[in-house]
Amino acid sequence: MKKRYLLTPGPTSVPPEVLQAGSRPMIHHRAPEYEPLFTRTNEGLQYVFQTTKPVVSFASSGTGAMEAAVVSILSPGDKALTVEGGKFGERWTEIAQAYGANAIPVQMEWGHAIKPERIEKLLREHPDVKAVFITHCETSTGVLTDIKNIGQVVASSDAVLVVDAISSLGAEMLYSDEWKLDIVVSGSQKALMMPPGMAFASISTKARTLLQSSKCSKYYFSLSKYLKNLEKNTTPFTPAVSLTLALDQALELIRKEGLEQIWARHERLARAIRSGIHALGLELFAKDRANVVTAVKVPEGIDGAKIPKIMRDDYGITIAGGQAKLKGKIFRIAALGYADTFDVTTVLSALELTLKRLGHPVKLGSGLKAALEVFETS
Amino acid sequence: MKKRYLLTPGPTSVPPEVLQAGSRPMIHHRAPEYEPLFTRTNEGLQYVFQTTKPVVSFASSGTGAMEAAVVSILSPGDKALTVEGGKFGERWTEIAQAYGANAIPVQMEWGHAIKPERIEKLLREHPDVKAVFITHCETSTGVLTDIKNIGQVVASSDAVLVVDAISSLGAEMLYSDEWKLDIVVSGSQKALMMPPGMAFASISTKARTLLQSSKCSKYYFSLSKYLKNLEKNTTPFTPAVSLTLALDQALELIRKEGLEQIWARHERLARAIRSGIHALGLELFAKDRANVVTAVKVPEGIDGAKIPKIMRDDYGITIAGGQAKLKGKIFRIAALGYADTFDVTTVLSALELTLKRLGHPVKLGSGLKAALEVFETS
Repeated sequence: MKKRYLLTPGPTSVPPEVLQAGSRPMIHHRAPEYEPLFTRTNEGLQYVFQTTKPVVSFASSGTGAMEAAVVSILSPGDKALTVEGGKFGERWTEIAQAYGANAIPVQMEWGHAIKPERIEKLLREHPDVKAVFITHCETSTGVLTDIKNIGQVVASSDAVLVVDAISSLGAEMLYSDEWKLDIVVSGSQKALMMPPGMAFASISTKARTLLQSSKCSKYYFSLSKYLKNLEKNTTPFTPAVSLTLALDQALELIRKEGLEQIWARHERLARAIRSGIHALGLELFAKDRANVVTAVKVPEGIDGAKIPKIMRDDYGITIAGGQAKLKGKIFRIAALGYADTFDVTTVLSALELTLKRLGHPVKLGSGLKAALEVFETS
Repeated sequence: MKKRYLLTPGPTSVPPEVLQAGSRPMIHHRAPEYEPLFTRTNEGLQYVFQTTKPVVSFASSGTGAMEAAVVSILSPGDKALTVEGGKFGERWTEIAQAYGANAIPVQMEWGHAIKPERIEKLLREHPDVKAVFITHCETSTGVLTDIKNIGQVVASSDAVLVVDAISSLGAEMLYSDEWKLDIVVSGSQKALMMPPGMAFASISTKARTLLQSSKCSKYYFSLSKYLKNLEKNTTPFTPAVSLTLALDQALELIRKEGLEQIWARHERLARAIRSGIHALGLELFAKDRANVVTAVKVPEGIDGAKIPKIMRDDYGITIAGGQAKLKGKIFRIAALGYADTFDVTTVLSALELTLKRLGHPVKLGSGLKAALEVFETS
């Protein structure tokens, strides 16, 4: 018997009641019983996005919502800043270029977040930029970007700000309206505690004015189509009905706990993980750290691929390795979504055993002690 | 207490074991436990598509797979025949035009299927056509098109044949390889007996050669991306994990029953429905009839919207009304996917009661008698 634990930055563990809600008998999406479900989930999403503006849902992975943002506001040749500091930032550039936009990649050293001042300077240098595409939590590096102040900067220009909050929404503080984030995209399989397969996008009034003039080719991911249908309380294409049922249940859990409490929980869990990591003599990778996921440098002399492998195969704990150029150099632990105190002690316990087996000097229990000290006082 | 029955051409009723499979605890799509699941479902899809060629899966509705076919083989300006004989045929034209292709819509009277000879003639008139886009079962009209012989016609030209088999795959006879269908697209929520949210596309060698030269803008729906990842037994973006678990279970049910037996079951159910409809003095809408869905003309003097409404609200039976220009003029009954004998008697029972209430002269039991006579002998 081996119990399994999922501590990756997505897909994350799904609460049993959410899994169950997703397994209810099928209902037709054009039938009246679907309408209150659709209304309720849309309102719940507005709460999670902290917006009074519409939030639309796609049957797709999070990347689909990113594509929807790009193709719905840009035209070929349009200038756009795409902030790159990891695999997902680079995806903004890839999508924009795939649709013929004039993407200006803004490269950040991996592990570091861009500062609002740099965006301000770039917008002065390129006053014709239509949109700034940015990543809230860069899942590949564990970096959190200050989108609050970047929101202020972009709001005072003609450009719109498009935020990839796929892994951060519902885990990190985010106020779409107050922070003037024009389009925020997210996915189901992270802090929303759902299976993958649904993606979301909120749209500000400023972003909405761009939809009419956008000339990028689009069909399935046309935001206008979804917005037009939303007004009639429906969807342009068959929605992922079972995932919508799961979303409804997940949103109920989120409302019950309260968004501020959820953000505080993620902060506490991440702080305990970081504290445990430090106590084990390991180093964190990111300078500007997210609570969503903690990236840890693989200690010298240890095979980086072995840490997640032993944890998974021998202890049943799934964490994430490094991606792209960080492969083998970091590992990533996420107490994200449906995660609490003893998910942290579980993953640290397995990590201590794993590091010891790999020959790293570990005083067993030292990481755990540090984590418990965090929990004792917060 | 009101039991509910779903007899629409999608979403269709999902077997309890498939719903349950989709509610299993989340697994990570890059973890080794996902690999055998992915391999098994891909092989199962090849069986359902009757192909030895790759079948790729998208997290999207069926329309997403249609878009994938268009954007992955065409370039802006490319000539394509789009056969229109209903709402879904028109969708081919819309997608092709959205991406700047030179779509030549081939209009059919709704209710009628195009003949292979007409395609042959069109291909002679337009020898530079890159692709023919067609609908196997036009869900909006209940028409089935002879894609077997159209496959032969297109195979002897330079064009490729792209078939929307979203509602037909797994219900109507279809041999992708033998019939030389280059790209076949389908969706999860029809005969595959799954919730909506997954879509599929098979790709022939002939179609594959077009992927390199295609210049339509694309990212999420790039077939090349999915094929490249399939070779490494993975997906370019996070797949719909819970739906993949459901698919695995649905494919097991399909294998157990056998594709030929499933086609025969759908034929028998459709024949019984048609027989019942005739016995009630009603007329069928389609001339070239699919087994997927039976479109019935609303009798004169009766409010067409009321038939599905009474059946649903008063009897708990969801059937479909007419779409687009057929709104109020037809209603559609589908014994599709997870459906058998007593789904047919249930829907006919409710229809008899409904028609009688609406003042249509009905001898109660007459439609049922005709259906039972079909079941008695087949």
